[in-house]
Amino acid sequence: MQLFEKLIEYPEAERLVLERTPRAPVEETPLGDALGLVLAEDLSATVDSPPFDNSAVDGYAIRSADAEAGRVFKVVDEAPAGRPATKSVGEGETIKIFTGGVIPEGADAVVMVENTSGWGEEFELKKVPEPGNNIRDAGQDTRRGEVILRAGTGIGAPEIALAATQGYGALPVYRRPKVVVLSTGTELVEPGTRELSPGEIFDSNSFAIVAQAREAGAEARRTHAASDEAEVLRAALEDALQSADVVVTSGGVSVGEKDLVKSTLLDLGVEQVFWGVKFKPGKPLFYGARSETRFFGLPGNPVSAMVCFDLFVRPALMRMMGREDKKRPRIRVYFEEDVTNTFGRMHAMRVSLKRTEKGWRAESVGAQGSGLVSSLTKADALALIGPESEGVRAGELVEAIVLREEVVLG
Amino acid sequence: MQLFEKLIEYPEAERLVLERTPRAPVEETPLGDALGLVLAEDLSATVDSPPFDNSAVDGYAIRSADAEAGRVFKVVDEAPAGRPATKSVGEGETIKIFTGGVIPEGADAVVMVENTSGWGEEFELKKVPEPGNNIRDAGQDTRRGEVILRAGTGIGAPEIALAATQGYGALPVYRRPKVVVLSTGTELVEPGTRELSPGEIFDSNSFAIVAQAREAGAEARRTHAASDEAEVLRAALEDALQSADVVVTSGGVSVGEKDLVKSTLLDLGVEQVFWGVKFKPGKPLFYGARSETRFFGLPGNPVSAMVCFDLFVRPALMRMMGREDKKRPRIRVYFEEDVTNTFGRMHAMRVSLKRTEKGWRAESVGAQGSGLVSSLTKADALALIGPESEGVRAGELVEAIVLREEVVLG
Repeated sequence: MQLFEKLIEYPEAERLVLERTPRAPVEETPLGDALGLVLAEDLSATVDSPPFDNSAVDGYAIRSADAEAGRVFKVVDEAPAGRPATKSVGEGETIKIFTGGVIPEGADAVVMVENTSGWGEEFELKKVPEPGNNIRDAGQDTRRGEVILRAGTGIGAPEIALAATQGYGALPVYRRPKVVVLSTGTELVEPGTRELSPGEIFDSNSFAIVAQAREAGAEARRTHAASDEAEVLRAALEDALQSADVVVTSGGVSVGEKDLVKSTLLDLGVEQVFWGVKFKPGKPLFYGARSETRFFGLPGNPVSAMVCFDLFVRPALMRMMGREDKKRPRIRVYFEEDVTNTFGRMHAMRVSLKRTEKGWRAESVGAQGSGLVSSLTKADALALIGPESEGVRAGELVEAIVLREEVVLG
Repeated sequence: MQLFEKLIEYPEAERLVLERTPRAPVEETPLGDALGLVLAEDLSATVDSPPFDNSAVDGYAIRSADAEAGRVFKVVDEAPAGRPATKSVGEGETIKIFTGGVIPEGADAVVMVENTSGWGEEFELKKVPEPGNNIRDAGQDTRRGEVILRAGTGIGAPEIALAATQGYGALPVYRRPKVVVLSTGTELVEPGTRELSPGEIFDSNSFAIVAQAREAGAEARRTHAASDEAEVLRAALEDALQSADVVVTSGGVSVGEKDLVKSTLLDLGVEQVFWGVKFKPGKPLFYGARSETRFFGLPGNPVSAMVCFDLFVRPALMRMMGREDKKRPRIRVYFEEDVTNTFGRMHAMRVSLKRTEKGWRAESVGAQGSGLVSSLTKADALALIGPESEGVRAGELVEAIVLREEVVLG
C-alpha cells in the first residue's frame, strides 16, 4: 500500500503552485471580449484624442473678438458631428455646430444655443463667450505616441473606452485559461436527469469547480469518466491534458486501491510536483505538470475540493491571467472563544464574519465535516488556524481568506 | 428651442429609476448557467444528503464490538462508491469499503486502511475504532424537505454545489437582463476597421457601455444606427425596444436641433420618466419606460456616459437581477485641500483613493472634462460634491462611490 511520500506545509504548496504556473499565452482578443483580462504589452495612442478641435456643446461657432451682447450673427454653414463645415467663419458670421463637430476655420469659441435667441438663419448673442469656450482641444485627452495603458493593466470598461478611442479593435491580452473539470466516480448521477439508486449520489463537485473556475475568469467545461474503468479514465485524462491549460479532477487521488487517477497521470507523463499537503480539509491534494498544462487532483469530499480550489487552483488561474490584483482579500480576525486544532496540521476553518468594535469577529459555521456542502454556503471566510499551535485563544488575531467580498465591503 | 422642462436632483433620479425598474422574469436556468444570478424561490432538499450512511475514508467496515488490536478480520465482500455490498458484516468479518461507499449491514465503524496491515483477503487491526468512526450519517448535511437556499440568495459556487447534491439540474432565477446598446452618430468609426477621415472619431461609448453592462451581470450587445437619419434611427430604436429589457443610447438626448433620439422615443410610445438631472457630468440624462422595457438616454460625452451608467443603469440592472447586495460600495473620503464646486449642481468627481491614518484620502485625477476618457482609467471612485454647498473644505468628509473594489479591499 502506497502512502503519501512527503506531506508539505500549505505555504510551501502555495509557493510551488505559483512558481510552476506559467502565464497564459498572449492573444489578440477582440475589444468586446477583452473585459476582465490583462494587457500583455504597453498600448500607445495611435491618434491625438480628440483628433481635432471640436465643440463640447450644441450651438454656434463664432470669432470671440466679435462677441458683444445683443449682436446678431449670420449663419453661413453648419458643422454636425462627422461632417466638417466647408466654409470658414468671417466677421459677424457664424456656423451652426453640434457636440463633436469640428471647429470651423476662423472660429475660436462656441456659444451654447441656450445663450442665444435660438436656432435659425441668424441669432442674437445673449451671453458673451471667452476665447476657447466650449472647445475641446485636439489631443487634450491623449497624444499620439504616448503610452496610454501599461502592460499588466486589467481591462475594465474605462480601459475598453480608452483603447476604442485609439482605434484598437483588438488587444494583446493573456487569454482566459481553458479549464477541463473531469468528474470521476461510478456513483455519480447527473443532477436533473433521474432519481438516485441505492449507493448513488448526485454529482456536485464538477459543477462547483466549473463555477469556481468561471468566477476566477477562466473558460471551464465539465467532462465525465468513470474512475474505475482504467481505459476510459486514461483516454479522458489524455484528452483533457491535450485540450486544456488546467485539468482538475476531484477524488481518485487518495491512497485507496480504487484510486486510479494518480497512477494513470504518472503513466501519461505528468510530473508530480507534490502530493499531500498538511492541512485540513484537503490532505490528498495532487499537483502535477506536463509541458504547459497543469493538473490539480483535488480531494473527493465536496468541501475539501472547493477549499483546495480556492487555496491553490484559483491563485494559479489568476497568475496565468496576470490577475494577481484580484486575489482574495486577507484580513485578521479573532474568535470570541478559544478554538482548538488537534489535527496536527493547518485548519482552513469555514467561518462567518461580523464587524465589531474590536475588528472582524469570526465564528465557525458549525460542524466542519468535509462532506457538509451546506456549511460552505454559510462561510464568509476561511480562518487559517495552526499548524504551529494547537489552536488560537479568544481574542488572538489569525489570518483569514475572505470568500465573500461584499461582507467586508458592506 | 426646447430646453429641459424640469431638472431633478440626483437622489430623486436614483429613486425614480429604482422605483420604476421591475424584476427580470424568472426562468428555470440550467445549473451550470446560474452562476451570479439570484434565486427567485426557496429551494428545498429533495433527498437526505448524504442519501445513505457512507464511508469517509478508504478502509474496512467492521462491527466495532469486535475491535481489538491485533485481531484478524476476514474480507467477505467489497463496497466501492456507487456499488453497495450484497453481503452483511458478521462477527470477525469485514467488507472492503471506499470513500462514499454504502456502510454495509452489520457494520458500525470503518477502519482506515492506514490503521490496518493493508489491503488483502484479510487484515490485522492496528488501531481500535470507536462506534461510528469514519461514517458519514445519512442526512447529516441536509434533510429532505428542509429549505436549503432561500429566495433572494445569490448563486455562487457553494450554492451550485448544494443544489447539485439535491439533484437540481436547473434553478428558478431572475434571468440576466438583455441590454441593447445603440450607438448613434454619423461621426463614429468602428475601431480596428479603418483610419479616421476629418471630423470622425472612433466609437468608444458603445463598447464601454456593453462592458459596463456585462460587468453588472447583464447580457449585452451593440447595434449601430446613424442618429441623423430619422427612419433608420426609428427602426433601430423600435427593434431594440422590442428585443431588450434595457435599451441604452449615448448622445442624441440633448437640446440640439440634430438630437432626434428623444423625439423618436416619444413617438414610439416611450413614457418619459425624467429628462435632465442636476449633476455633473451628465445633465441631459433621459429615463423612460415602455411596458416592461426601460430606456436610458445617456449623454454623448464618454465620461458622462460612463458615469451616468454607473449611477443609474447599473443599479437598475442589479435591481432587475435581485442583486442589491452587489451594489458599489460607498465610503467616506476627505481631501487634503479645499475643493470647489461652482457648477450649481452635484459633481461626481473622479478621484483616486489612498488609505491614510485619517481614513480614505481622495484626490482629483486631474482635469475633469467630460471628454477625458483617460481620466476614468485613473479613477478609483466618484466623490459626490455638493449641491448643497459650493464645495468641501480640506478634511471634511464626503460620500464616494467606489469603482475599483480592489483598492478598498487591498
